[in-house]
Order: sequence, then structure tokens, then C-alpha cells
Amino acid sequence: MINQDFKSMLSGKSKIRELSEFATALGEKIGYENVFDYSLGNPSVPVADIYNETIIKLHREMESMPLHGYSPSLGNTEVRRKVAESLKKRFGVPYETKHIFMTSGAAGAIAHAARCVTKPGDEVITFAPFFPEYMQYINRTGANLKVVPANTENFEINFEAFDAMMHKNVQAILINTPNNPSGIAYSEQTIVRLTDYLRAKEKEYAHEIFIISDEPYREICFDNREIPYIAKYYDNTLTCYSFSKSLSLPGERIGYVAVSPKAVDADIIAVICGQISRGIGHNCPASSVQQAVAECLYTTSDLSVYEKNMNLIYDKLVELGFEVIRPGGTFYIFPKALEEDANVFCDKATKYNLILVPSDSFGVKGYFRMAYCIDTEKVVRSLEALETFVKTEYPNR
Amino acid sequence: MINQDFKSMLSGKSKIRELSEFATALGEKIGYENVFDYSLGNPSVPVADIYNETIIKLHREMESMPLHGYSPSLGNTEVRRKVAESLKKRFGVPYETKHIFMTSGAAGAIAHAARCVTKPGDEVITFAPFFPEYMQYINRTGANLKVVPANTENFEINFEAFDAMMHKNVQAILINTPNNPSGIAYSEQTIVRLTDYLRAKEKEYAHEIFIISDEPYREICFDNREIPYIAKYYDNTLTCYSFSKSLSLPGERIGYVAVSPKAVDADIIAVICGQISRGIGHNCPASSVQQAVAECLYTTSDLSVYEKNMNLIYDKLVELGFEVIRPGGTFYIFPKALEEDANVFCDKATKYNLILVPSDSFGVKGYFRMAYCIDTEKVVRSLEALETFVKTEYPNR
Repeated sequence: MINQDFKSMLSGKSKIRELSEFATALGEKIGYENVFDYSLGNPSVPVADIYNETIIKLHREMESMPLHGYSPSLGNTEVRRKVAESLKKRFGVPYETKHIFMTSGAAGAIAHAARCVTKPGDEVITFAPFFPEYMQYINRTGANLKVVPANTENFEINFEAFDAMMHKNVQAILINTPNNPSGIAYSEQTIVRLTDYLRAKEKEYAHEIFIISDEPYREICFDNREIPYIAKYYDNTLTCYSFSKSLSLPGERIGYVAVSPKAVDADIIAVICGQISRGIGHNCPASSVQQAVAECLYTTSDLSVYEKNMNLIYDKLVELGFEVIRPGGTFYIFPKALEEDANVFCDKATKYNLILVPSDSFGVKGYFRMAYCIDTEKVVRSLEALETFVKTEYPNR
Repeated sequence: MINQDFKSMLSGKSKIRELSEFATALGEKIGYENVFDYSLGNPSVPVADIYNETIIKLHREMESMPLHGYSPSLGNTEVRRKVAESLKKRFGVPYETKHIFMTSGAAGAIAHAARCVTKPGDEVITFAPFFPEYMQYINRTGANLKVVPANTENFEINFEAFDAMMHKNVQAILINTPNNPSGIAYSEQTIVRLTDYLRAKEKEYAHEIFIISDEPYREICFDNREIPYIAKYYDNTLTCYSFSKSLSLPGERIGYVAVSPKAVDADIIAVICGQISRGIGHNCPASSVQQAVAECLYTTSDLSVYEKNMNLIYDKLVELGFEVIRPGGTFYIFPKALEEDANVFCDKATKYNLILVPSDSFGVKGYFRMAYCIDTEKVVRSLEALETFVKTEYPNR
């Protein structure tokens, strides 16, 4: 019999997907160039040339078995070695091959990391605003995701609320910096405070509390800022990475878990991920894609358009009187809506062909997300629409 | 804290992997060309040319977003349409796009199919001899895999034992024909008897009993035989396929679930698979690989070597007096060992540089598996070693 639990999920449609479908339908009616679709976080810049060149070269020159044959279940060994080496060079954390587990994107990475450090019934804590798929990623392991309310002052961590929610059954903290949806990169001060706190709690509870650090936006940072690398601050860190955004390869499903060499059981965590893999049908990302990204570890697509878009949007939002925190990275911005119910605000925006995502599903009310991975030319036109929208619908502000 | 359940799995090493590692170590000592390694089912023939040509063409000519962007969560729509069309043409089952869910290989396909039609605590039945990873694939969903003892007369189905094990809580039957490890393709008579039986049980129990049909060896069949297509015989069939063997692409992790158009809830099962995907971190096979196999749906690698190898090995086994069923397909053969304990038999064989896998982990005692996806030249030399082994160790037969 069909699993009724999964069947019942079909009725609940994600707000983001609903809006994206609305945008597509609107585009068919009025021309897609006239729809200012800020709904989806789908990278808009082309793949880094070196990636396509490498794929072509591999398929021209390599023997079939080493290119297309089974990878070892933890990933291609030479690819893992190169990933470890690149992280060591870039961040000074002494990763070795054994600390790297290749995955199908960050979703695959989190699926393994979460199962590795929890058992059914355990709790995992994350901080609002947060990527709503985390609910599926964590709860479907059998553990429970709890969400700490947002610190709306700056979208860093609400430590008071966090402390009130901590207890002995919390086995992992899931963080995402730079953050989807806020665009905020946690300050070093926040990370030091968080990791000091967790070390104290590890002592108090007499068990490890792992940080699962979801870092697909690591390479998209603004104002020449350095994004602190979490594993440098906390030993029990499982870094989950995806090449989706840095190389514009989301559909190729390629990423990794990097286990801090100083984590408890660091030498066997990747092997445990391999065991987990057998039970969830993961069994490695595509071998050719693994081997191609291994040649692209020190490069990215041209990501500059995201900062350019951010500056245009941020300046216009400020000019129009929005409350908004300047993003430190990603391709998201998260302003406060101009009325209490962000759903009503975003509904009104659609009249101006602006597709904005209300913040409710990100775990905080009254804000909206704009995913500005779209052409700058369109951003410019959308800001005229935004101005008209605001001045027409909210004239007395 | 590290999940102790997964951690404890690290001590249990698979016999196949152990033997494969032994073969590699032996190869380093005496030269790999002198090791007759029949342990691993890793396709030995090169990828079909059209696959590599398509990948190169796609990476040269396509825009970045349609090639590397996110697929819809059920897979690239045009790829799904082409897969449905090819199955309809080949087997006469009227699949449409909505019945196809793209997966990372057969492992990914079974992970979704099993979760779709069971809930934790349900039972799934399979038939010995069987691929031992099924234990992980099924038991890690929360359901329980039960194994019907082998019909050692011909390695078709032991219906008496099956009937004795059936009860109301059995929600799915997992079959694999042509079969790993026996090489047997179930006869049409077996399939008719099985499906008639299941339809009667569906009525008796008043719920569906799905067949999960694992078909990665569908294209490797011998003696010009037609392999019956299960979904033609039974409506509630979820066909799990992988291109690993037909195109020699095991590392690229590409396959699908095809939902019989006549299955209960046929129109939503693929959508349910998409929901399942979110919780296990699957989120689609690589987009470029999906698009490349869609151009290879009516072709295979040159698979003739497997039949050539089978004939050589089968004839020699018969000549040497082994009890053995002639395989109908795959690249496996499953003879009876020459002494009661197949482990002892296979241990002795290693003295002759023959790496054979004892049958215990396949759910039947006293047999051994040879995976003859190796060069024919090596098969010929191995048969001399086999003869020496048999005549030396078992002189009085």
C-alpha cells in the first residue's frame, strides 16, 4: 500500500515553488522579460569554463573504467585527496583524504552528516531565518529540528532564546553562513560566542554536540570580507559543501562532507557516511562530475554580478525606506515588509509583476526574500516596479 | 554523539569487498594479470561511444542553465518523456512522463520505491539467492526484508516456502531477474505463477502488494532469449532500472523508477518519490548525465563478451563435473561448490589465484558466484587454473 505519510505531504506545496510556478504562468501571459522573478535561488551565471573544458577532456582522453566505473563508496580517492588539500591550503585546517566524503550536493551532505551524529528522537537546533528544506532533511532522519527564533536586530544568533531551548538531548547545531534567506554572514564574534557556548555545553552534558555547517554560499561574499571558516573555531564540525553556487552547477549534484580532523571519531566519520549511504540509495555522486570538479577547486564562476545586484537592490530599498540588513554574501536579501503580514505584502507586489517570497516559511514573520540571481538589466527595471509598488500601495509612509 | 548503530556496522565487512581487496593485494604481489578475480560485478566493457559523444556535444553546445541548472525534483522533464516513450515502444506498456522518476542508479530507485510502498514495520519479501545489499536497502527504510529460501533445482522461485512466509503485513515483493548472483532469468511460467498468486493475495488481504522489480541486467540476456518484462504481467509494478550495466556507466549513478500506468495511484507515485527524495538527500541524478542517457535509450555497450565468457565457463564447469544452471543473462554464474562449505572451497581456490565468492551472503549455502565481467583472454587462462584446482584438491570425484 502507498505510504500514507508521504502521500499526505503532496497537499502541502512549498510557498517558493508556488510563487515560482506563478511567475512562469505570468511570464507566459505577459512575456517572461516582464516578470521580476525573485523567487528561486537558481544560479544565473554560467558555469566556470574550466569545468566544461575538463569534462570534455576527460570524456575524450580517459579510459572508460576509471572515468565511468564505480567510485569507492566514499568517493573517488584522488578527488577526495585534492579536496582535502585545497581546504587545507585555503583555510589551514589539516584535512586528509580520510576526512572527505563526496556527496550529491549539500542536500546529500546534510543527509549523511545528520544521520551520522544523531539517532531517532534526538534534537537538532537551527536558527531562524533558515532554509525550509532543513525540516525535511532533519526530521526525515528520525531526529527533530527545533528552530531558535530570529534575532531581527541583525539576523545573527538570538543567544538568549537559544540558551532557553538547549538541553541534553540536543546532539547537533545546524548553521548556514552566509545565510539563506537573510544574506547575512555571521561575524567572527558570533562564531566565537557560539562555539565557546557549545564547548561549555559539551562539558555540561558529557557528550559531543556537533556543528553541521551548511556552506554552499561560502564563495559568494561581498565588500571583500573574509567569511570565517567554522571548522577553525570548533573541532566537532562537519562542513557540508556544494559546488552548486560557486561553479553554477546545481543540477550536477556535487558536494562533500569535510570532517574536521580534530572532531571526535574524525578518522571514521567518512566511513560511517559510507555505511549510511547504503541505506538511503545515495551511493556516490557521478564519477565524471567528481573528477571534473577536482580540477576546479581553486576557481569559481564569475560571481561578481551578485554583488552588483545586491548593491543596486540594497541602495534602492534603503532609499524607499525599507528596514533591511546589508547582506554579507549569497544572492539573497531579506527586508522587512511594509505591513505586518508579509503574505499580504507579497501578494500586492505581484500586481507589479514583482515575485517576492514572504518570510513565514523561513521561520520569521513580516519579512520577504529576494533571490537576485537574475540579470542586472532586469534588476534595474524591477526597481522601477518596486518604487511604483511602494509609492502606490503605501503612499502615507 | 556519533550514531552507535551505524558505527557498529563498520566491523562487518562484506565478503565480496574482502575478497576484492584480497585480489588487489595478491595482484600487487604476483602481477594483476595472474589473479583470476571473479569477485566484483563491475562492467568490463567500455561505455557505448554515443554516450561520450553526447556528453561532449552537450558541454560544447548547450547553454549553462539548461545543462547544469537544477532539474525538477522528479528529473528532467524531457528526459522522463523520452524514457517513457522508449519503454512504451520496447515493451508495449503505455508509460507517460508522469510515470518516470529519475534516480541515481538502481540503488536510488529501490530506496524510493521501497519507501513509497511500505511504512516502518512492514515486510518486504525477496527470494534467495539475492543481492546482499537488499538488506541495507530495505531494512534502513524501517521495513523488514524476509528472504524465501532458494529453489536450488533451478533457482527460480520456491513457491511452497514463499507461501508459508506470506502474511497480511507483506507490502512488497522485491525481485531481480536476470538475477545477481544466479544469472537465472525467471521463466514466463514463473512470472505468471508469481503474479497470479500475488493478485489472489491482494484480494485476500484487501491491500495492494507491489512488485519492486530490480532490472539492471535487463539488457544482458543470452541465447537470444526474450526476458519477460514484469510490468506487462502485473499492474502494481515499480520497475527499478540502472544504466550501469547496459551502457557500462556504473559510476555515473543514473537510473529510474518506472511506475506501471496501471498501478494503484500510478499518477502520483513519482510525485511521492520526489517527496521521499527531500528526506534522504537524493535530489536527482546529475543533470548532464540524465540528458546524455536520454540519447542512448535504444543502444547498449557491446555486451557480447559476457555471453562469450559465460559459454566458456559454463562448458568447462560442466566438463569438470560441477552442478550448475546455465545462466539466462547477467555476468554471473552460480555453480555448486565441490564440498559442503563453500567458504572452505573458495579459500582453497585462492591458492590457484582464483577469486570466487562463497554463496552464504547471497542467502544460500554451498554455492559460489563468479562475476565474469573480465577479459575473455583471462577467462581462458583462469579455466586452466580451475581445472588444476579441481583435479588437485578434489582428485577422487
